[in-house]
Amino acid sequence: MSWRISKEGFDPSSIELDGSRFLIANGYMGYRGTLEEFGKNELVACTVAGVYDRYDDKWRELVNVPNGLFVKVNYNNTLLSPMTFQDCAHTYGLDLKDAYYFRNTKFFVDKEKWIKIKTKRFASSTDYHLLCLEYSITANFDCEIEIETGIDCDIWEINGPHFKGMSFQKLDGIYVTRLTTNEGKNFAVAETADHLDNFIDKEYLRLYARKSKVKLASDKEFKFYKYMCVTHSIEFENPFDEAIKRINEAKNLGFDYLFEKHRERWQERWSICDISIDGDEKAMLALRFSMYHLLSIAPYHSEKLSIPARGLSGQMYKGAIFWDTEIFMLPFFSYTLPDVARNIVMYRVHTLDGARRKAKEYGYGGAFYAWESQETGDDACSLFNVTDVITQRPIRTYFRDKQIHINGDVVYGFFTYYNATGDFSIFLEGAAEAVFECAKFYYSYAYYKPLKDRFEILDVTGPDEYHERVNNNAYTNRIAKFTFEKAIWLYDILKEKYPNILQEIDSKTCISQYIEKIKEAEQKIFLQKPNEEGIIEQFDGYLKLEDIEVEKLKDKMLHPYEYLGGGNGLATQTQVIKQADVVVLLNLFESEYEKAILKANWEYYNGRTEHGSTLSYSMYGLLAAKLGKLKDAYEYFLKTALIDLEGNYKQYVGNLYIGGTHPAANGGTWMAAVFGFGGIRVEGTKVEMDPHLPAHWKSLRFNLIIHGNLFEFEISNSKILIKSTRLKNSKNRSYRIVANKSEFIHEIGQLLEINLKGE
Amino acid sequence: MSWRISKEGFDPSSIELDGSRFLIANGYMGYRGTLEEFGKNELVACTVAGVYDRYDDKWRELVNVPNGLFVKVNYNNTLLSPMTFQDCAHTYGLDLKDAYYFRNTKFFVDKEKWIKIKTKRFASSTDYHLLCLEYSITANFDCEIEIETGIDCDIWEINGPHFKGMSFQKLDGIYVTRLTTNEGKNFAVAETADHLDNFIDKEYLRLYARKSKVKLASDKEFKFYKYMCVTHSIEFENPFDEAIKRINEAKNLGFDYLFEKHRERWQERWSICDISIDGDEKAMLALRFSMYHLLSIAPYHSEKLSIPARGLSGQMYKGAIFWDTEIFMLPFFSYTLPDVARNIVMYRVHTLDGARRKAKEYGYGGAFYAWESQETGDDACSLFNVTDVITQRPIRTYFRDKQIHINGDVVYGFFTYYNATGDFSIFLEGAAEAVFECAKFYYSYAYYKPLKDRFEILDVTGPDEYHERVNNNAYTNRIAKFTFEKAIWLYDILKEKYPNILQEIDSKTCISQYIEKIKEAEQKIFLQKPNEEGIIEQFDGYLKLEDIEVEKLKDKMLHPYEYLGGGNGLATQTQVIKQADVVVLLNLFESEYEKAILKANWEYYNGRTEHGSTLSYSMYGLLAAKLGKLKDAYEYFLKTALIDLEGNYKQYVGNLYIGGTHPAANGGTWMAAVFGFGGIRVEGTKVEMDPHLPAHWKSLRFNLIIHGNLFEFEISNSKILIKSTRLKNSKNRSYRIVANKSEFIHEIGQLLEINLKGE
Repeated sequence: MSWRISKEGFDPSSIELDGSRFLIANGYMGYRGTLEEFGKNELVACTVAGVYDRYDDKWRELVNVPNGLFVKVNYNNTLLSPMTFQDCAHTYGLDLKDAYYFRNTKFFVDKEKWIKIKTKRFASSTDYHLLCLEYSITANFDCEIEIETGIDCDIWEINGPHFKGMSFQKLDGIYVTRLTTNEGKNFAVAETADHLDNFIDKEYLRLYARKSKVKLASDKEFKFYKYMCVTHSIEFENPFDEAIKRINEAKNLGFDYLFEKHRERWQERWSICDISIDGDEKAMLALRFSMYHLLSIAPYHSEKLSIPARGLSGQMYKGAIFWDTEIFMLPFFSYTLPDVARNIVMYRVHTLDGARRKAKEYGYGGAFYAWESQETGDDACSLFNVTDVITQRPIRTYFRDKQIHINGDVVYGFFTYYNATGDFSIFLEGAAEAVFECAKFYYSYAYYKPLKDRFEILDVTGPDEYHERVNNNAYTNRIAKFTFEKAIWLYDILKEKYPNILQEIDSKTCISQYIEKIKEAEQKIFLQKPNEEGIIEQFDGYLKLEDIEVEKLKDKMLHPYEYLGGGNGLATQTQVIKQADVVVLLNLFESEYEKAILKANWEYYNGRTEHGSTLSYSMYGLLAAKLGKLKDAYEYFLKTALIDLEGNYKQYVGNLYIGGTHPAANGGTWMAAVFGFGGIRVEGTKVEMDPHLPAHWKSLRFNLIIHGNLFEFEISNSKILIKSTRLKNSKNRSYRIVANKSEFIHEIGQLLEINLKGE
Repeated sequence: MSWRISKEGFDPSSIELDGSRFLIANGYMGYRGTLEEFGKNELVACTVAGVYDRYDDKWRELVNVPNGLFVKVNYNNTLLSPMTFQDCAHTYGLDLKDAYYFRNTKFFVDKEKWIKIKTKRFASSTDYHLLCLEYSITANFDCEIEIETGIDCDIWEINGPHFKGMSFQKLDGIYVTRLTTNEGKNFAVAETADHLDNFIDKEYLRLYARKSKVKLASDKEFKFYKYMCVTHSIEFENPFDEAIKRINEAKNLGFDYLFEKHRERWQERWSICDISIDGDEKAMLALRFSMYHLLSIAPYHSEKLSIPARGLSGQMYKGAIFWDTEIFMLPFFSYTLPDVARNIVMYRVHTLDGARRKAKEYGYGGAFYAWESQETGDDACSLFNVTDVITQRPIRTYFRDKQIHINGDVVYGFFTYYNATGDFSIFLEGAAEAVFECAKFYYSYAYYKPLKDRFEILDVTGPDEYHERVNNNAYTNRIAKFTFEKAIWLYDILKEKYPNILQEIDSKTCISQYIEKIKEAEQKIFLQKPNEEGIIEQFDGYLKLEDIEVEKLKDKMLHPYEYLGGGNGLATQTQVIKQADVVVLLNLFESEYEKAILKANWEYYNGRTEHGSTLSYSMYGLLAAKLGKLKDAYEYFLKTALIDLEGNYKQYVGNLYIGGTHPAANGGTWMAAVFGFGGIRVEGTKVEMDPHLPAHWKSLRFNLIIHGNLFEFEISNSKILIKSTRLKNSKNRSYRIVANKSEFIHEIGQLLEINLKGE
């Protein structure tokens, strides 16, 4: 049963978390795990990827559309809902394998009598405009119920209202709303109900519904189906017609057929992605849950989309794309669904102009990627991102203007994809240009210190957002150097192999005029070196800050949601950090440091990290696993994996609601398993392995696609089994596998067994 | 009567302000303007210059010593004090000319009966270890009173207790306390009462006193005298013996003689310093009051002392020396008491090693002067200088580590003195070395920006402390360039004329290795240029901050003492500034800017300045006067002049008490009068004059000592009269006087009349 997540009973306080936890999505839209009878107050939302809107001077965010899956059932003038109906047995959850949401509620209307509602819904993975719902009602006695279903246009919006225009139309059993956002984008949301007759149309304020009376015979199941279709003008010239066409198509094909196709698609996905762990059902389920979410929200259909920090679980974080995607999620996709990974990295190519605008706005050269990126690449991040809970004043945060590591993260993302796939074409299609622009930006941002003959990067915010505007953040400086390195490497390759493309890029970027400067900066950029104790200082002066225990610091808090960073936050003048920072550096550039240094820094920073970001656990877990610190590694692995399952994370920063799903943690969970416990390190076609399995794991099995071929790994404490299969269109190349101090040349199709015991 | 400041009546709420306002001092110690019967709760204090102490981990501050002038008079078992005795007529104040404090209180003990207490006290200007008090009592009826007088050792201390040891001794009518500070410095405070008999010694907790019963005959004055002597181990090997010796000497010489000598010394001072204004008694009195304070607290006797920000009025601001001294006070001394000015600038030479230690502490080259300087030059400034009144948490302030303009201010001070006196010897005695070290510091602090081929000074706090950690503060960059300029100039002179001295300095500073680098930085340092509207941006990005009116900003305050700066203060993200910043630049480098630029910036910044520092008004007033904006100039002049007289200034920043006298405002008042309205600009032996007198001023008369000779100026709207006198030991040189577009060669002894009407 490690494919099913379900909960029993009804607890109003978990509506918010369950809505995220049990999300269904298909990369085009997400539909929260709420009950069919729920409305705006229960945070029902259908959030559409890539369509953003700003109302007035509020934050620009993703748009939620009306809820076409709305259903209410009344018996005896009483709503059948666990929220209001006391005596009921309620089960609900997700089937991860087939990717659907289910609920099963039995209402005891009388001592012996009950009515049962059972539903199943999925976000179609074959026509991503579709949401489908099967609604079944059974009673153990003859009775009449009243069903009300339609489109609920009373939308939960954080910074709305986003629709300045909304009109309703009824066409042959189909309900359609046409909507226009404040920014002028058009939506159509169509809905129909199948197998439901004798209804009358009702129109309420912001609700279009039909009412049907249905007679139920004892113990005889009554079923009807709902289809909801969402289209918009970014994709279609006429979203209205498209929605009608597709909803009719869906109705004709029927729920079962659509579900079967959907299921098949997911089977394909799982056949590559699934990870199995012999000896740890809980971990396996958590891993599957993580991958379910990543697979749900991935941009299969467009390279102009990426994955927002809260996936498609709502409008939190403005639906914006952060460094989370490249650093935490992209590895999973690069090694399991390279086409999706390609879409994700190409999104940064398509948003390069926005990044250029941002660099210009701040007076820098090149391109400066958005800290919070939306569809154009312009930065959605505000300068005042948090509200002081004590004074109710906005706090100036330096995420937008100082978190310049985002450029290096984007470049790192290109090379994560390239390293996994060997697909150089992204660089010819714009990624090289983006790398050059990122390098130019860093060069224009950096300063030269003559007395020390070095370049420094001043006044930045690293991943640890509690310490803003610091100098020479270890991570930022290294990723800037990485950017310089890759710009130089690409320049040389293009010059030799693709001179015409280089010329074209040069006409836009003048990279030829910069390349010598970039080479100098690459040579002379200052990197924080380990001190006598082996500690890499997070930034200039960090080690001189007050060294206080995290819990002691937290004891000083005056309010549970108090922000520890900002201008005068409690952590700012201490060594307490929000999240992995040096530890990110060590994970990303692991091969450059000796084990003793990795270990010393893990231990030093581990004791000083609040983990105030859900990005933090996985980085600590990953490095701990690489280091064989299995107890810590497993603990952090579980913490990451269970973030959404258990919901023990910060829901608020200051006054800001930051709930929703955590795809970066999902990606981090996968990394901790594969790169951490699995100990896999890929460099092109060389695969190094140094696994460290938790003691109770008998074996760990997973697949990776490396340079176009499928590798199946089975790791136990005694041996590693590797089997490879040539995939369609891939090259039949040879790989080098390094493990247990030996190197093996591996040809596709071979089976390799490596004994881990003894040397 | 414009030499006397007096108040009538008793208001307990003005005890604090009066204590500062009516201070007597002699550069060695200050004694607050409190009544003889007052104690610790009324903030009685005798604060000794240059002796600092730290208790536990509290702030290190100046030491207050026991009060040897303590006197209480009882009639009929009732204390005669306006604080407790309702029916009395009370007058008190200062005689500015003869520099003494007086009080005159008539107690109506019955309908027809009164007892009058009249006192007079001064801090001797001839033996600066002495405080002298004349205490007179008269009754209009026969009666017996009880006098209690001695040493009150219950000391008002802000960050004390500072005496770890205290012992008392009685020797032939003399009371002596020996005290040892926590840091091990020894004090002796001796006291005696003359003309007072029949007493019995009493010892209370922390009070050593004698009680005498005195029979008063109707209408017959009874007088006695008190002498108090303070000595310490920084000056004397045996402070105890010195105190005994001096107190006996004082008693022998007697009050009248000592007062006469004191008066003569002050007469000399006033003969040079006094300013008279025909047509404005109020302004004249305020000016005299300002000069009285400056003359009281000046370090006449030592070049190891300077003037603390709150003079000798208490332990506020830790008794530390700030940039206030060089930029606001030093001009007055340089042109009226050059010997005192020399002491003040030499203080910075004596504290150079402390500044070197600070530079090293922060990893910079050269010397980094203390933001809050005490006797060693080590920085007394804490990193958390203000407490948040809302959360009661310390606020990190970047005064100590980022207010690097202090170095340029110190260098500017050397040249203020040198410009006024022509005395190059300070440079040979250490000031050149200090200038080199300051220049080296700036060079090591600065960064080079290759793409712009310029040096920048990043991450500083300018005079406006509400905007911390800014880049390229206009004032800081210019004063750094000034430092480079002067280092180069001095290097060339020393090389040519004093090669041995240069060699000696070079052995300590390696300046020869730096000089070419400093020349390059001097050429390439970035200076903020006026924009299209003529506005000089205070720092990079300032003009993009929210442009809100000062009053509107203040409306948002949640607490009257709320600090507007710090990490998240209300002003930090707006254009509202604490105090003159660009306007300081314009005053100090006036000749480099066209009038239109001066005017545009005065107007722009005037509207955005909170004047949250008492340093602010005078800078605005000074520039306004130079620009002929007479209404504004006069308003700011009065505001500055009346700061201590009217006491309308901030008494608290956050929770921090910042009361006391304001010598920088006193100096600013003088500058506004002489440089502002008088329009004097001295460059060596060239004196430019462009006076702008307020309309109601018929004439303004003042004296300046310029390069050793005395100049008397009398300015009216129609003409300028200049008379010069050769002073002892001065050179008989010729001067150039420029006024009304004409230049005059002036020989010492001549009388020059310049007509201002017509051209």
